[in-house]
Amino acid sequence: AKSYNIVVLPGDGIGPEVTGEAVRVLQLAADKCGFELKLSSHDFGGIAIDNHGKPLPDSTIAACEASDAMLLGAVGGPKWGVGKVRPEQGLLALRVHFDLYANVRPALFPSKSLLSLSPLKESVAEGTDLIVVRELVKGLYIGEKTEADLTPGAAGEAADVMRYNRADVERITRLAAFLALQSSPPKKLHSIDKANVLACSRLWRHVVQETVDREFAAQGVEVDHQLVDSAAMVIVSNPRKLNGIVLTENMFGDILSDESSVIPGALGLLPSASLSGLPDGKQKCRGLYEPIHGSAPDIAGQGIANPVGTILSAAMLCRYSLGETRAADAIEAAVRQMLDARADGGDEVRTRDLHGQAGSKDVGDAVCARLEKLL
Amino acid sequence: AKSYNIVVLPGDGIGPEVTGEAVRVLQLAADKCGFELKLSSHDFGGIAIDNHGKPLPDSTIAACEASDAMLLGAVGGPKWGVGKVRPEQGLLALRVHFDLYANVRPALFPSKSLLSLSPLKESVAEGTDLIVVRELVKGLYIGEKTEADLTPGAAGEAADVMRYNRADVERITRLAAFLALQSSPPKKLHSIDKANVLACSRLWRHVVQETVDREFAAQGVEVDHQLVDSAAMVIVSNPRKLNGIVLTENMFGDILSDESSVIPGALGLLPSASLSGLPDGKQKCRGLYEPIHGSAPDIAGQGIANPVGTILSAAMLCRYSLGETRAADAIEAAVRQMLDARADGGDEVRTRDLHGQAGSKDVGDAVCARLEKLL
Ligand SMILES: CC(C)[C@H](C(=O)O)[C@@H](O)C(=O)O
Ligand SMILES: CC(C)[C@H](C(=O)O)[C@@H](O)C(=O)O
Repeated sequence: AKSYNIVVLPGDGIGPEVTGEAVRVLQLAADKCGFELKLSSHDFGGIAIDNHGKPLPDSTIAACEASDAMLLGAVGGPKWGVGKVRPEQGLLALRVHFDLYANVRPALFPSKSLLSLSPLKESVAEGTDLIVVRELVKGLYIGEKTEADLTPGAAGEAADVMRYNRADVERITRLAAFLALQSSPPKKLHSIDKANVLACSRLWRHVVQETVDREFAAQGVEVDHQLVDSAAMVIVSNPRKLNGIVLTENMFGDILSDESSVIPGALGLLPSASLSGLPDGKQKCRGLYEPIHGSAPDIAGQGIANPVGTILSAAMLCRYSLGETRAADAIEAAVRQMLDARADGGDEVRTRDLHGQAGSKDVGDAVCARLEKLL
Repeated sequence: AKSYNIVVLPGDGIGPEVTGEAVRVLQLAADKCGFELKLSSHDFGGIAIDNHGKPLPDSTIAACEASDAMLLGAVGGPKWGVGKVRPEQGLLALRVHFDLYANVRPALFPSKSLLSLSPLKESVAEGTDLIVVRELVKGLYIGEKTEADLTPGAAGEAADVMRYNRADVERITRLAAFLALQSSPPKKLHSIDKANVLACSRLWRHVVQETVDREFAAQGVEVDHQLVDSAAMVIVSNPRKLNGIVLTENMFGDILSDESSVIPGALGLLPSASLSGLPDGKQKCRGLYEPIHGSAPDIAGQGIANPVGTILSAAMLCRYSLGETRAADAIEAAVRQMLDARADGGDEVRTRDLHGQAGSKDVGDAVCARLEKLL
């Protein structure tokens, strides 16, 4: 039987609770689909600062190096919020260390019955089905920085450099096009930039178009180009217009992926993947999988956190890093059935963020029960 | 009688139609309030490219230099969209030439009866009342640029520099605090940055807090700090949380001001001001006033464009550049009464973007009729 090495990074706050449920689901899917999981847990984030003095300890890096995929809960909390050494530095370091250049963030309703949760009018939100593909290791995040001298009287000049080259844009375009081609007909690519102002965006627009024309047009992939300010409007006013793949650079992607993740009405529902290569099975695609929510210290330890985002991240892990498509499909279907309204044949299991009473474990139980029947 | 020199820049598309109505309203307000207007129109944007070969001709600059304020319609259109010389370059040049460092963009409902137009659920949108104050002449827009060499085989590296110094942040903070102090109690400042990643944002956060503490805390001004990705979520999920003044740098402000301008449901409703100094009457405050919508070439020349955003821009012009508060208040009240539902004592005059049948001139007429009674 195939065997995979999975590193679990529970992290801080509700992290251990949500990864706990996701691991249960993952283990059941593995048993049923006939593959083996070697799971090990490692310190990362705030807890790693406490135990090792830094958010990404060498022992954790070594474990991740040896793994097929990483499943993360959440990092951060008021305890470490302000110091020189902060949990999210571990996240940025992990992305760079493993060159996780593609952040994949779906914004969609995991169940149609959740439409009423959206802050958007139901007629506006209905049918939203987009995936933000964000370049994750270049741009303003990684360019040279000049920290300001804050002594009174000093000019106090700060600078950050946004930098991209052709290869950076080509590889993320290929990844976005690969994802578009998973559907038939292929999903539409919407590339977002600020080409009327930024040199990086002019490069971006040119190379995205050129790469699609050269390598993917024959397979039916199409791309359009929009300005970031306009895209920020469309995500609220008419998100279906961006259905498909929204492809953008690091800083814009940070903003737009968070903006669009509000559409389904509960951050606890949504997964993410950060990938080091094309998930095409031809090469090792290292991936970090995590829900998009934070560590929610206010509800930590109470067993009430919504584990759906982490469970769906585990499904993405099966799909992209393990190539276990059957397991991925089944986990996603089980989550949908568990969330669906009773009237639609679902279990209507809902945590408090979804205006229900269920605990994290109830959600895990219900997903596992559905999975038993599906596999 | 006081006399003011106003430059009108009708621009392209629907620009001449909307400035036409706003000028009528402005003229009536001036007559009633007893000040004189010297109005002159000048080419700017696409039409200036056609007539002078560039979007901001020297003759237009000279007229603007000699003016007390500038009222702009809109620039751009498919005719000039792709060339080397583009209309929006004129806008960027005008901002820099007059050091219009503060872009003031309210996002609010000019009439409560318009709530149903919002893409947000009414319970979410209701009571939204925020003003984005965007730094407009520094940051990524103005920093050094490296254009990529796009020849095949070249590395094709592009770069843009985001740069801020202490003085840049101090002056925009003072302007935001000045606006906060126009209300009693003062409005709350919400400063938006990405201090967990950017050196410019760390400077920003430090100097905003320090300036408020030193110069405005005694008058009751308070500031909190939020990350741009989180703010992009809150604008959709719970915009009232940001009620007050949203203070941010140029690129973030471009995105967040457009995002928040979708809340009222029609871009045609909203005004903006771009200021060169504190509008405190102690110094000359040069300003460029314009609706936030574009030139809408598809409906140009039909007399159906919504002039409300431009009329409200004219009110801001009276308030900030002329110090004619009574005229400003009256124009804003007249617009509200004209838009209000009949049931609330309003005229319910609505252009097509507001699901009505009124033309641009009908709106101008109705605002003037209300103004006659108010002044
Ligand atoms: C924690 C922070 C540095 C990070 C980012 O900006 O990338 C987060 O917002 C995210 O999107 O994963
Ligand atoms: C036209 C463009 C350069 C401009 C900007 O980005 O500032 C516009 O989007 C705006 O917000 O006024």
